[in-house]
Amino acid sequence: MSAQGQPISGKTVAEHNSRQSCWIIVHGHVYDVTEFLDEHPGGSKIILKYAGKDATQEYEPIHPPNAISDNLPKEKCLGPVDMGTVQKVEVKITDEEKARLARVEARPSLSEILNLHDFEAIAKLVMPEKAWAYYSSASDDEITNRENHAAYHRLWFRPRVLRDVTHVDWSTRILGHQTTMPVYITATALGKLGHPDGELNLTRSAAKHGVIQMIPTLASCSFDEIVDAAQPNQVQFLQLYVNKDREVTKRIVQHAEKRGIKALFITVDAPQLGRREKDMRMKFEADDPHEVSKSGDKVDRSQGAAKAITGFIDPGLKWSDIPWFQSITKMPLILKGVQTWEDALEAYDRGLAGVVLSNHGGRQLDFARSGIEVLVEVVEKLKEKRGVTLPNERFQVFVDGGVRRATDVLKAIALGATAVGVGRPFLYAFSAYGQDGVDKALQILHDEFEMNLRLLGANTLKDVVPDMVDTSNIHSHVVAVPGDRLYDNNYESMQTARLREIKAKL
Amino acid sequence: MSAQGQPISGKTVAEHNSRQSCWIIVHGHVYDVTEFLDEHPGGSKIILKYAGKDATQEYEPIHPPNAISDNLPKEKCLGPVDMGTVQKVEVKITDEEKARLARVEARPSLSEILNLHDFEAIAKLVMPEKAWAYYSSASDDEITNRENHAAYHRLWFRPRVLRDVTHVDWSTRILGHQTTMPVYITATALGKLGHPDGELNLTRSAAKHGVIQMIPTLASCSFDEIVDAAQPNQVQFLQLYVNKDREVTKRIVQHAEKRGIKALFITVDAPQLGRREKDMRMKFEADDPHEVSKSGDKVDRSQGAAKAITGFIDPGLKWSDIPWFQSITKMPLILKGVQTWEDALEAYDRGLAGVVLSNHGGRQLDFARSGIEVLVEVVEKLKEKRGVTLPNERFQVFVDGGVRRATDVLKAIALGATAVGVGRPFLYAFSAYGQDGVDKALQILHDEFEMNLRLLGANTLKDVVPDMVDTSNIHSHVVAVPGDRLYDNNYESMQTARLREIKAKL
Amino acid sequence: MSAQGQPISGKTVAEHNSRQSCWIIVHGHVYDVTEFLDEHPGGSKIILKYAGKDATQEYEPIHPPNAISDNLPKEKCLGPVDMGTVQKVEVKITDEEKARLARVEARPSLSEILNLHDFEAIAKLVMPEKAWAYYSSASDDEITNRENHAAYHRLWFRPRVLRDVTHVDWSTRILGHQTTMPVYITATALGKLGHPDGELNLTRSAAKHGVIQMIPTLASCSFDEIVDAAQPNQVQFLQLYVNKDREVTKRIVQHAEKRGIKALFITVDAPQLGRREKDMRMKFEADDPHEVSKSGDKVDRSQGAAKAITGFIDPGLKWSDIPWFQSITKMPLILKGVQTWEDALEAYDRGLAGVVLSNHGGRQLDFARSGIEVLVEVVEKLKEKRGVTLPNERFQVFVDGGVRRATDVLKAIALGATAVGVGRPFLYAFSAYGQDGVDKALQILHDEFEMNLRLLGANTLKDVVPDMVDTSNIHSHVVAVPGDRLYDNNYESMQTARLREIKAKL
Amino acid sequence: MSAQGQPISGKTVAEHNSRQSCWIIVHGHVYDVTEFLDEHPGGSKIILKYAGKDATQEYEPIHPPNAISDNLPKEKCLGPVDMGTVQKVEVKITDEEKARLARVEARPSLSEILNLHDFEAIAKLVMPEKAWAYYSSASDDEITNRENHAAYHRLWFRPRVLRDVTHVDWSTRILGHQTTMPVYITATALGKLGHPDGELNLTRSAAKHGVIQMIPTLASCSFDEIVDAAQPNQVQFLQLYVNKDREVTKRIVQHAEKRGIKALFITVDAPQLGRREKDMRMKFEADDPHEVSKSGDKVDRSQGAAKAITGFIDPGLKWSDIPWFQSITKMPLILKGVQTWEDALEAYDRGLAGVVLSNHGGRQLDFARSGIEVLVEVVEKLKEKRGVTLPNERFQVFVDGGVRRATDVLKAIALGATAVGVGRPFLYAFSAYGQDGVDKALQILHDEFEMNLRLLGANTLKDVVPDMVDTSNIHSHVVAVPGDRLYDNNYESMQTARLREIKAKL
Repeated sequence: MSAQGQPISGKTVAEHNSRQSCWIIVHGHVYDVTEFLDEHPGGSKIILKYAGKDATQEYEPIHPPNAISDNLPKEKCLGPVDMGTVQKVEVKITDEEKARLARVEARPSLSEILNLHDFEAIAKLVMPEKAWAYYSSASDDEITNRENHAAYHRLWFRPRVLRDVTHVDWSTRILGHQTTMPVYITATALGKLGHPDGELNLTRSAAKHGVIQMIPTLASCSFDEIVDAAQPNQVQFLQLYVNKDREVTKRIVQHAEKRGIKALFITVDAPQLGRREKDMRMKFEADDPHEVSKSGDKVDRSQGAAKAITGFIDPGLKWSDIPWFQSITKMPLILKGVQTWEDALEAYDRGLAGVVLSNHGGRQLDFARSGIEVLVEVVEKLKEKRGVTLPNERFQVFVDGGVRRATDVLKAIALGATAVGVGRPFLYAFSAYGQDGVDKALQILHDEFEMNLRLLGANTLKDVVPDMVDTSNIHSHVVAVPGDRLYDNNYESMQTARLREIKAKL
Repeated sequence: MSAQGQPISGKTVAEHNSRQSCWIIVHGHVYDVTEFLDEHPGGSKIILKYAGKDATQEYEPIHPPNAISDNLPKEKCLGPVDMGTVQKVEVKITDEEKARLARVEARPSLSEILNLHDFEAIAKLVMPEKAWAYYSSASDDEITNRENHAAYHRLWFRPRVLRDVTHVDWSTRILGHQTTMPVYITATALGKLGHPDGELNLTRSAAKHGVIQMIPTLASCSFDEIVDAAQPNQVQFLQLYVNKDREVTKRIVQHAEKRGIKALFITVDAPQLGRREKDMRMKFEADDPHEVSKSGDKVDRSQGAAKAITGFIDPGLKWSDIPWFQSITKMPLILKGVQTWEDALEAYDRGLAGVVLSNHGGRQLDFARSGIEVLVEVVEKLKEKRGVTLPNERFQVFVDGGVRRATDVLKAIALGATAVGVGRPFLYAFSAYGQDGVDKALQILHDEFEMNLRLLGANTLKDVVPDMVDTSNIHSHVVAVPGDRLYDNNYESMQTARLREIKAKL
Repeated sequence: MSAQGQPISGKTVAEHNSRQSCWIIVHGHVYDVTEFLDEHPGGSKIILKYAGKDATQEYEPIHPPNAISDNLPKEKCLGPVDMGTVQKVEVKITDEEKARLARVEARPSLSEILNLHDFEAIAKLVMPEKAWAYYSSASDDEITNRENHAAYHRLWFRPRVLRDVTHVDWSTRILGHQTTMPVYITATALGKLGHPDGELNLTRSAAKHGVIQMIPTLASCSFDEIVDAAQPNQVQFLQLYVNKDREVTKRIVQHAEKRGIKALFITVDAPQLGRREKDMRMKFEADDPHEVSKSGDKVDRSQGAAKAITGFIDPGLKWSDIPWFQSITKMPLILKGVQTWEDALEAYDRGLAGVVLSNHGGRQLDFARSGIEVLVEVVEKLKEKRGVTLPNERFQVFVDGGVRRATDVLKAIALGATAVGVGRPFLYAFSAYGQDGVDKALQILHDEFEMNLRLLGANTLKDVVPDMVDTSNIHSHVVAVPGDRLYDNNYESMQTARLREIKAKL
Repeated sequence: MSAQGQPISGKTVAEHNSRQSCWIIVHGHVYDVTEFLDEHPGGSKIILKYAGKDATQEYEPIHPPNAISDNLPKEKCLGPVDMGTVQKVEVKITDEEKARLARVEARPSLSEILNLHDFEAIAKLVMPEKAWAYYSSASDDEITNRENHAAYHRLWFRPRVLRDVTHVDWSTRILGHQTTMPVYITATALGKLGHPDGELNLTRSAAKHGVIQMIPTLASCSFDEIVDAAQPNQVQFLQLYVNKDREVTKRIVQHAEKRGIKALFITVDAPQLGRREKDMRMKFEADDPHEVSKSGDKVDRSQGAAKAITGFIDPGLKWSDIPWFQSITKMPLILKGVQTWEDALEAYDRGLAGVVLSNHGGRQLDFARSGIEVLVEVVEKLKEKRGVTLPNERFQVFVDGGVRRATDVLKAIALGATAVGVGRPFLYAFSAYGQDGVDKALQILHDEFEMNLRLLGANTLKDVVPDMVDTSNIHSHVVAVPGDRLYDNNYESMQTARLREIKAKL
């Protein structure tokens, strides 16, 4: 349609502004999305709003790099547009968005942020609703998502006293690399949803605080951007979704190794992406109800978002693929998403460098157990069946999910983990405050580590030993007997003494 | 009263329009219900409203076929009416009913329905209040009803990774018959309460999706209607309440076998119907309070509804009746409502084809345990005392009650069940959306099965094994120590950081 | 002051109408209560309101018989008044009381009462506030009070099927006496607080329904009134608080035996009465705040009510007193309030007829365990250490506290209790509806027994065996780990699908 | 600046009234706090309000003695002021403060205070907000803080009956000293926050009631003031934070011994002070939001308050320091804050007089277990490994934290504790009512002890034995499986019967 090299004019694009023929401009290129309208995970309405126009500003934050070209047939990419001829899109700010921007202005000072929970509380108020839905959602009834945090509350400390804790040091080594704390920034997708700098916020803050970042396959920023943003000698790991096309995977892995990535974390808990209903429901909210009622039954959107960005993931990945990975890279290989002692021992037997006991932040199989619970059985069986004790240089075990406090981390360390991955809290930190937020989050963790190491009676992480944690309740999954509503309703609650006036008024 | 064959005139009927002499027309026949007024489970008021008139429209949806003729002495059926002479009943629509119809109009598109819970949420809003009360009610304090669902939350997964799950298949065989999923539509009463097509919605959707429907004795549609609605070769089972008059039962069973029914599920947990107070209370709401206060104390309505439609059920049914059943039919016999391993083994020893571990959806004995909990003990004892492991072709064990997710089903399958019965969710699905709702419900289950099989690391149901579920908490029935209201009231909850304006206002 | 036999004139009484000299008339006698004003458990204000006047109407319902004469020195009883000369007291009805009386009028018909909970719900609304406070209050934080009910929810049924339950019979024998159900009406104090006929409501209803009433020492009606109200051959038991003056006790016991009382239940859990703060707080509400603030600190009212009606109880009662009881009566002796297996076995060894495992309805020691929990250990130890199995004719074990459903009773029966005492539900029944309420309560229990026996697969109580109840959770006293308020507050609850309009409005 | 001995004039001070040069007067001395402004834990704003003025009235209640001179370099103390020349500060009372003072007036009479909870309820309403925040706050998520109370609810009584409890006596000896109850007033900081007389309220009430007070290192009143306020022979203990400068500590200890202090409780659970966020958040609320937003990120206030008053505490304190303590004093030495059996046995082996099983009221390590839970393991291991049974004269074990009822205390006594420390409830008592509040609190405990000893069947504390408490649930730390919000939301709660009008309105 465009003569070779000849950019398309804005006027031509503007003519294709309907459901019958819908072109849009993204990053200076024109795409014919007419046939894609009904498949778009975010609904057709949002695309039609930009039919014939430049959609870059809307597109940018909520898609991974190359999302559009990866998801459209080659021929639908019509070539570059002559930007000078394109009419500027006036972004109308809705009342809702105005209210959100007012909330952004009203954020409390970072000095008022006292813990990681605070970032989430603020982020929830200042992030675009869709972004919040994407980050916070989890699978099915979100039971595992919350269990990840709850499980830590079944572990209680046995702190020791009268030890000289003048000097405390919570630095450690992960896969041989120094870190100032036993925490790494784990991989999470679509960082630009929360902040225009996306994952770079994490890279920069990780450098500043001497912690390790795991780069996600589904980052909003490209892999190279993130590596480029690192300081010399800054340690980065790579999280990998394995592509059905192994050549693509080989290229990614070898490129990463060449760029200095120190370890490869292969995700094994996501052969198919979970149904995250909070996120799915958000999409419907955004749609035109009328249109939905007409066409809704025909299009299955339930797996749209997942498919769009994750359709390449290979559900056929299996143990016998491991040697191939070992053949294409010298990076240590770690399986991310192991959930039983059986699989952890298999990984050990196959010479892998470690496992992350994880359920993908509760976003995959609901009623999967928390990493911290699985850790207890892995430690026990590694000892019993392989004679291996943790922590262990040769085979390192990590956990992630649900961590909000340094005490959570220290429980995992005491039980044998080398380090703990933290994801959403950092997302919320930069969504609310950019890199400053991540810096503050890490500083809070430092403060908590210092205090809690002292209170545990430990000078270093080596002194944080299994005896310091009571694990006897970790496997208890209790659901209260359903309440007796009639009895409870009849029971008149006790009251404390009350002020006289208050009484008078009542 | 009417000369033989001579239809009664509408005018004659209209004269019997009082408590002293009350005739009504149903399906073109005249009935003298004067003496029945005080016995009517739904109260006399609703009948008196139609005294001397055609009550069909009101009667139809809330009574099983032949309810009126079965419950009145023969001589009270006065014969056919000359419909041409009957004055049309103008149905006045109450404001409440108008509001309900408006809610029906406002139902969200089916594409917005993401899980089985959603059907219930919508059905609750769009169903007639009485219908909702009948479907949702359970016995006594409804503890068992809710426990049925809660019990699944005490079971947690141990999913395996790195298995090739490109191809997953959750079809199976129930009593030798193919089904596309390990779920059957279990028997539930009075389908027309929720939708004019009643149980036919289920029959049609079952055909479409290749699942098996169990036809209830207390269906709103007649048995033959339901069988007639089936596709050729569509598999249907029959649920049986055993009549005190065994000849009636024999006729029903042999008729069913002749019509191609593939298995007979004999209900054994309902020698008497439970007291379902939510349903009972609904009846009083409907009555004229003044009238109730005058006559209420005399009439015991507490068992009225149950008696009316279930008075025929034989509380004397016993183990020694089993050989008789075996003598009158070749259909496999399954006991529905077994609740202990002792009775499951007895069923096994007597050569029955299986048992349904069920407590009747919590509608019978409150504090009966959930089917899924009983399954654990049945599996254990069958192994220990009979050397039988489940699943097993010769003796199949089913569970029902409380299922809302494919994960619930997969837990039962892992523990040894052949399949799981689902009832209320399908009722709510058609009450909200007719057959489309049931189709959608089955599609949701398919989606969930696909995803969760992959996430469990299983290609087929055979790969869903006991090791994949942690059952250690299944028998735990915990009730929290009653709260310390004074202490809790004094405790000032922690707060996260807040936006500045919000602070200013507070 | 009055010449012998010469009644005092109303005019004379009327002169003593101040704090300095305060006379009141009760049941036709004049009392000088000047010095008693500050000791009155209900506060001085209410007495001063009747200074110089006839207080009978106010006094009657809230005091046990002879309370005034028992609590005043003999010389303060000034003798009979000439009632003809006494001015009628005009009782001013407060707005609050008017509202209450309107609520009494608005009570639902008894036919709308479906369970024992309903009586409590209605009684709470229609009883005088003080009466409700007295009946419903329990000791300290009322933990044991609620635990009594909660404990039953940790017991789950294992019902049997395919037993011929055409005929079911829940009658039994208590201490050799026939009862139509395994429930007796246990002793509770001050019945007139709830209804002018007080305990007679229970006597009459017990006769009608063939159940046994235990007459309380602290009844509002006199012992003889209650016995006189019984039908010929109606079985009654007596609950006994043992007086410091054993001659008084002897007189009571031997009088009771002579009047035909069939068993003596000696209360052993109340050497001192518990602090019931809900009741204590009610008294302050009733007082003039101004007066309280002036004098409050001086007078300790905290034990006033208890002392007033229970000062006679002997805290010195001990095991070695038992032979004396055995020497003064042939009635079977049962200890009411046993709370450990050790004391139950001691009772057995000393030849007593039985024990009631009870904590006084949660009104004495808070954190005492429920009777049903203690039953489990008593059964176990009686078997283990004495070779005795329950139920047992020679040594009968009862429980009381927290019962609201026939299922609760059947759990106790299955575990070995002979029968169960029910108290507050009957109080609420007559407080709301007089004797009709008690009749209805008993009828509800009958209905529930019939249904639940059938559903358990039991023809008689003998068939309700230990195997039918899972007791494995009975000793579990769980308190949830305190909630993570920050995390929970950040968690955004999932939502079901919603109607379209509702969405639009939100 | 001031000539030697020559007091500074108020006029001179008044000139230094800005952020650039900020002097304030406290207790008649002038301080240059210009450089301290940004370090002030309470923020600079409150200081600047008094720049150039007399800040004594504001300073007094919220600082320990000598806080200002201890925290400023010597040269910043500019010398005495000529008070005659200082302008009186007019304290402006804010609307909020006026409302608080109105609430103080509206306090209920002490006779309406029925239990220790009541003091907290009233104190919360009548205390300055900051004071409440300081007293009530605890570390991190305040889980341990609440667990301290909750743990007692997992202990249930096994009371004995038919023992002569006419005479009951709950006095005992602590470290050889008589006390009227097994409770001592434990050390808590900054008493003047709650009441101008601060800790003296406790001293005076302790004398009156014959209980022992433990004097805190961080009292608002000076040590000597508190000792001077004691009656002759009144027993007092001293709680000690060990100073990095051991000479300071030696001086304090030997001075205390000379003044007659009977025992030294060395705090071992606070090498660093916990982060108490409720308290930290309060400081921000008090600040000028505008100023915070400008400077907030620079100043780390998170540990400010703690450092300010506790910077002297030695985190290097260790077991090998114990002999030194033994060498400088003959007072019995007790370790306060032991949290494992290992450390308790170490203390025993080193010849210490006892330990307090405590987690500092939940203000230090969150998820530390409660003292009462640790007691169970200490008792078990002392028996098993040292053959020592508790209670024991030579090695006494105490617990503190979470106590609100005499029943709580009696549980600890039954399990082997010599006595129990109570802190916050007494703070709330005097914060609400001064010394009268403390008197009342002790009287309430006496009343509860009397009642509960009788109800337990114990004449003295020796009769309160391990068999009287069921400890089987003490180690259970249960967190419910996260709720199924969709299911729960769909469930329609049961309703009791309702009054007729109410129905009509709804």
